[in-house]
Amino acid sequence: MPPVNTFPLHLRFGDEDSYGHVNNVRFLQFLEDARVQLMSEAHPGGSFLELVDPDHYALVGRQEIEYRAPLNFSTRPAAVEIWVTAVGASSFDLGYAVRDRMEAEGSTTTAIAATTMVLVSRSTGRPVRLSDSQRAVLLSWQGPAVPFRRSRAR
Amino acid sequence: MPPVNTFPLHLRFGDEDSYGHVNNVRFLQFLEDARVQLMSEAHPGGSFLELVDPDHYALVGRQEIEYRAPLNFSTRPAAVEIWVTAVGASSFDLGYAVRDRMEAEGSTTTAIAATTMVLVSRSTGRPVRLSDSQRAVLLSWQGPAVPFRRSRAR
Amino acid sequence: MPPVNTFPLHLRFGDEDSYGHVNNVRFLQFLEDARVQLMSEAHPGGSFLELVDPDHYALVGRQEIEYRAPLNFSTRPAAVEIWVTAVGASSFDLGYAVRDRMEAEGSTTTAIAATTMVLVSRSTGRPVRLSDSQRAVLLSWQGPAVPFRRSRAR
Amino acid sequence: MPPVNTFPLHLRFGDEDSYGHVNNVRFLQFLEDARVQLMSEAHPGGSFLELVDPDHYALVGRQEIEYRAPLNFSTRPAAVEIWVTAVGASSFDLGYAVRDRMEAEGSTTTAIAATTMVLVSRSTGRPVRLSDSQRAVLLSWQGPAVPFRRSRAR
Repeated sequence: MPPVNTFPLHLRFGDEDSYGHVNNVRFLQFLEDARVQLMSEAHPGGSFLELVDPDHYALVGRQEIEYRAPLNFSTRPAAVEIWVTAVGASSFDLGYAVRDRMEAEGSTTTAIAATTMVLVSRSTGRPVRLSDSQRAVLLSWQGPAVPFRRSRAR
Repeated sequence: MPPVNTFPLHLRFGDEDSYGHVNNVRFLQFLEDARVQLMSEAHPGGSFLELVDPDHYALVGRQEIEYRAPLNFSTRPAAVEIWVTAVGASSFDLGYAVRDRMEAEGSTTTAIAATTMVLVSRSTGRPVRLSDSQRAVLLSWQGPAVPFRRSRAR
Repeated sequence: MPPVNTFPLHLRFGDEDSYGHVNNVRFLQFLEDARVQLMSEAHPGGSFLELVDPDHYALVGRQEIEYRAPLNFSTRPAAVEIWVTAVGASSFDLGYAVRDRMEAEGSTTTAIAATTMVLVSRSTGRPVRLSDSQRAVLLSWQGPAVPFRRSRAR
Repeated sequence: MPPVNTFPLHLRFGDEDSYGHVNNVRFLQFLEDARVQLMSEAHPGGSFLELVDPDHYALVGRQEIEYRAPLNFSTRPAAVEIWVTAVGASSFDLGYAVRDRMEAEGSTTTAIAATTMVLVSRSTGRPVRLSDSQRAVLLSWQGPAVPFRRSRAR
């Protein structure tokens, strides 16, 4: 039961900017779609992580990304690994690694990243506690801290 | 001689996603265009910050963003404040605040962010030292640390 | 009372693709934002064109664009001219010209385009007739046919 | 040997706009990536269509798209059919259909489109003649005219 989920990343020609590499902004879109795919998968016990319902939804509270190597457009899929690094009362942290290909062996990690998601009430806009079942699904995906090398900007 | 530069942010209808707010990814594009505008402005002494030339260019090494409030599309410009938070040997850090309108008074800060830029040699791909004149321009834009509230994801 | 409205087009660095020109896809976004700006302007009589309300909204039914010259990123605004070319029972056609700068004199037209918009009922999803006041506003913006040079693809 | 090639279209969450459907602009990006995938495929005789080389590249001269039905984000791939509708001296026309799923049976066609591509010399920027081998590959993909329903905007 691996804590890390890997999804194919289907690049688009337009992901590259005029420097001839995938633009730094697009990497956050890759994280977003990995989250969406993670939420659309059944968790190991067979149910889904339901964060969006008539009463609640999950907002992005914070993101951090470290770029390690340029990524270039290819019709061959790149890959995004996604896992949970921490679960709090009403928020949780996700870790990511963007690789240049699906096969881990021989691949290059082009970026690593972290996102803090916050569960919010639609009516009040304020954080609400994660339920026990939401926590259980999130904990089933738990993995290591994101190995950022760079210190936080001063 | 204010250390903070403020540029208008012309939103596009397509910046909003299906949640009806400006998408979290787009904020990094707003930072990118604020950088581009900062580099196209004459610095206080009258010359420009030249980071891109036949020998060198500047890469994004790291970004961090904290979302404070939703931003909605409007034909009235939002605003990005940008300033320098630190200058190193071959890299420098930028701070940003994205506001919902140009006028600071009565505006809402929707996100704060930081970017580490690295000056790189085109031939070797390795970091190179900032020149004295580049440092002087960067230091003329120096301002306070970005007041992040959230701790770094664990 | 000019039939053609011209709006500034604030380019973004990311509008260029790896060929070093503004990507062909982005031009349709420029048309979209010109439409949005046109709808946010008071028409000559002082009222607004209200196409979006609790009962109705306007859909894009068809678009056609002819690219005339490359457009490059600049911090100086480009421009989009927009006008009405035809008004039907439940639809209307818009014409556009994308120029490389706001000042018409000395500018280059980089693309011309046309869009058919259809007014649709939210409840049935079917076209509904434009009201007399909607028609009046649209007719106040009427201009010439779009001077496409290329024949329709076979 | 079917004249129509069908490629999976991997939607992204951010393809939807605030109306809750895939944005009209994005459809042109789907066409672009279908072109790129078509060019990366071996043609029936085993070689590739090489339009981009040190001397030449292909530009988009014209596009036309008719929207038939809304398309919604899904983690299940949509599909783009692409084929050649005409081959001229220095240009060729492509036809497209965007479906809401890979399986043709039971799918909905959400848009049909056409693009005119022009082969251009890098040094002069002027059209150059397609070679016999380029023509042979293009003709191997030839299919029917795009069945546009709407008349050209007036």
